[in-house]
Amino acid sequence: MAKAITPRHVDYAEWYNDLVIRSGLADYSAVRGCMIIKPLGYALWENMRAVLDRMFKETGHVNAYFPLFIPKSFLSREAQHVEGFAKECAVVTHHRLKLADDGSGVVVDPDAKLEEELIVRPTSETIIWHTYREWIQSYRDLPLLINQWANVVRWELRTRPFLRTAEFLWQEGHTAHATRQEAIAEAERMLDVYARFAEEYMAMPVVRGIKTPSERFAGAEETYCIEALMQDGKALQAGTSHFLGQNFAKAFDVTFLDQNNQRQYVWATSWGVSTRLIGALVMTHSDDDGLVLPPRLAPLQVVIITIPTVEEPQMTVARQIADALGRQGISVEIDTDDTKRAGFKFAEYELRGVPVRIAIGKRDVEHGTVEIARRDTKEKVTIPSESAPDYVRALLEEIQRSLLDRAKRFVADNTHYVDTFEDFERILEERGGFVMAHWDGTAQTEALIKERTKATIRCIPLNAEPEEGRCIVTGKPSHRRVLFARAY
Amino acid sequence: MAKAITPRHVDYAEWYNDLVIRSGLADYSAVRGCMIIKPLGYALWENMRAVLDRMFKETGHVNAYFPLFIPKSFLSREAQHVEGFAKECAVVTHHRLKLADDGSGVVVDPDAKLEEELIVRPTSETIIWHTYREWIQSYRDLPLLINQWANVVRWELRTRPFLRTAEFLWQEGHTAHATRQEAIAEAERMLDVYARFAEEYMAMPVVRGIKTPSERFAGAEETYCIEALMQDGKALQAGTSHFLGQNFAKAFDVTFLDQNNQRQYVWATSWGVSTRLIGALVMTHSDDDGLVLPPRLAPLQVVIITIPTVEEPQMTVARQIADALGRQGISVEIDTDDTKRAGFKFAEYELRGVPVRIAIGKRDVEHGTVEIARRDTKEKVTIPSESAPDYVRALLEEIQRSLLDRAKRFVADNTHYVDTFEDFERILEERGGFVMAHWDGTAQTEALIKERTKATIRCIPLNAEPEEGRCIVTGKPSHRRVLFARAY
Repeated sequence: MAKAITPRHVDYAEWYNDLVIRSGLADYSAVRGCMIIKPLGYALWENMRAVLDRMFKETGHVNAYFPLFIPKSFLSREAQHVEGFAKECAVVTHHRLKLADDGSGVVVDPDAKLEEELIVRPTSETIIWHTYREWIQSYRDLPLLINQWANVVRWELRTRPFLRTAEFLWQEGHTAHATRQEAIAEAERMLDVYARFAEEYMAMPVVRGIKTPSERFAGAEETYCIEALMQDGKALQAGTSHFLGQNFAKAFDVTFLDQNNQRQYVWATSWGVSTRLIGALVMTHSDDDGLVLPPRLAPLQVVIITIPTVEEPQMTVARQIADALGRQGISVEIDTDDTKRAGFKFAEYELRGVPVRIAIGKRDVEHGTVEIARRDTKEKVTIPSESAPDYVRALLEEIQRSLLDRAKRFVADNTHYVDTFEDFERILEERGGFVMAHWDGTAQTEALIKERTKATIRCIPLNAEPEEGRCIVTGKPSHRRVLFARAY
Repeated sequence: MAKAITPRHVDYAEWYNDLVIRSGLADYSAVRGCMIIKPLGYALWENMRAVLDRMFKETGHVNAYFPLFIPKSFLSREAQHVEGFAKECAVVTHHRLKLADDGSGVVVDPDAKLEEELIVRPTSETIIWHTYREWIQSYRDLPLLINQWANVVRWELRTRPFLRTAEFLWQEGHTAHATRQEAIAEAERMLDVYARFAEEYMAMPVVRGIKTPSERFAGAEETYCIEALMQDGKALQAGTSHFLGQNFAKAFDVTFLDQNNQRQYVWATSWGVSTRLIGALVMTHSDDDGLVLPPRLAPLQVVIITIPTVEEPQMTVARQIADALGRQGISVEIDTDDTKRAGFKFAEYELRGVPVRIAIGKRDVEHGTVEIARRDTKEKVTIPSESAPDYVRALLEEIQRSLLDRAKRFVADNTHYVDTFEDFERILEERGGFVMAHWDGTAQTEALIKERTKATIRCIPLNAEPEEGRCIVTGKPSHRRVLFARAY
């Protein structure tokens, strides 16, 4: 067996890296900053994608696919956008290799230089809005509600699997609207979809808010976000939805004739979540023994293991229960590997985060019972085997609920309201977590706090109650608390 | 309205291009050789992908995801492979842009040159086999049955939407086996999956065969393929499955300890189909009025149009029928656009290939009838509205069958057995189609035929009966006919 997982209290970052690799979610690759998503990680992403895709379609969106490459000049059309992305672009400059003259391999063919360099998309606003210019002529063509599932590349210097990688998988919605109001409503609606997905499927509570100008997406007028709190007290931005105003419409000259036959610029949104959500899921629920996956997203929900080995009559009972669970739409597998001991298997399935394990021994069959263990709390019960299917179905729901409840309690316990900069620093050092504090609304103060504490304003919560107070740094008046944290 | 579709008899290539654009399958992009897959085309791909993915999973495969980029040096590890792909690689040389000194936009930052250039994957054998070296140690790790859904890039000079594009979407299976026999069986099994998919879902008959050495995949020991015949008499390679021998295992040093504790090289396969299948689908069934889509893959199976406009009581009947169809799992939409005439709508849905159209007029409601039109034959019937749901369900099956039957007849009518080179040339000029002829088995004769007629050996059919004959060029003995055609 490979090296054990570093316990969380020893080194949280090491625990994360160990777990991601050992559980089979991902692997490092030969390409700097690019990960390999292994079958377990990809199955999780497929489940996430299926739910999100359904939610997008239910809200009227359709999928399409735009080119991987973006002409370099497109990037500079929108001034903020180019500032935000130019520094982390993979640039394609040639379209051919040739055999080296000395036979030592291949070299770039200097005769195959592109007239204009292409960048590998870091996000697709530019190529899409260039296209929308052709697709949008009249108010009848609006709204245009398109989503894309794709890979994107942002050249990062320090990378970690799922959390920050040069290439990642994501979806990016790009919508076009006739009015400002409708575009804002769309951006808010998709934030709501993300929040519901996080809470109802990932069992991960999130704070919905808006970013300060300095944390906005490059090219947005407003960036909405959902922020989650990881077990180590650091925040993680789990999804963003942008109101882009008319910035991209103006940059790419996208106009429409309104109902009064007046030509107007189109209003835009974009919104995305990525494989980063897998990292968020890991750091919300998992423990020192391995992954803990919410049943609604787990690739395998139930595993059945016969003890001491793969033999009758245990296998007959296993098959009966598996059939009954399968008929209820529960994903279930019987482990039929007869080369490994049950204890080893228990640990493996715990590592891989299977929510429910059913163990069936010879003695169990004699007594007509099975042992059911839940992954989240490690609790075990022994129940009559004929009631196992119903029990397991209810247990999966209970685990889903319980994970969310536990995560909510964690957020509540780790959200601190502070009124002085001294307390602010102390809380961040001693406990981490979300820190709700008053801020004077200036980028200067925001930068100073970041410099001195490494904490950033994660968002101005949408549900924040108005409250009069004074900025923890400048003492200037403030009308609501904002959410600070150190973040991934 | 945009320009009409060029009729097939005038210019088949123009018809294809017009149809792909006008029907909303795809659009040209600002990036040379890259297409935009529009919502209709993408929905078709999603349906294809869903079926294929289920078939892959049923045959024991799991999905994973490997990096988009491949270190340049990986390509040269396998001698054939580098020959095949070096000339069409998009090469990433830099990882940053910077603002031009004159403020005119962005330029490549010369300080951000990569130490080793990366190529955008044209196919993933190299990066995957580099990884398999870590994943495979013992016979217990085999077989390894992995598939990837991804985008790939091959820099093509002449491109056409779906048929040949610089970037395309595809799946690539990469499997590793302990024995030669098992790997060959896998390659053949996946060819069989492709053939079943083509016939049962695309309603497209295919010939299964093996490629001659000169048409093999770069790095394969044997390439299996399915070949389809398009309406214009040209062949289209619709899918390939490769037995790679131990070539990639040797290039990347992937070995395993067998049951006798002997170290052996691993045996490999790879297999893929791409968005090219959408082009094949178009050129198998569609007509001068638009797309004809097989019901099993059509994104929308049934459209209901009320006449003369969106009004009662027609809408009530429409909703009743739509509900009944929806309950049977049939995808159905009622057109509620009240700004367009019914005649215009009929033409639009014909263009988009919706298999069944139900029209409901005021008079129909009085008579308790509806009019049902099938897209493939344009036949219409008027039937009692209460029997519409059952009728439509059966009709969808009938259309699926009928499309396959018609396509099979077309292949039969356009498969020619010739015994002289004179006949061979004449048939190709006058009629096109599949030409079954004797060949002496040499690459020299194959090249000569290609040069003189532009026809290539599409495959040596797997089901070919042994037959003694003489090569149409050299007169040398031959033991079976092979399949020639001009091809896409």
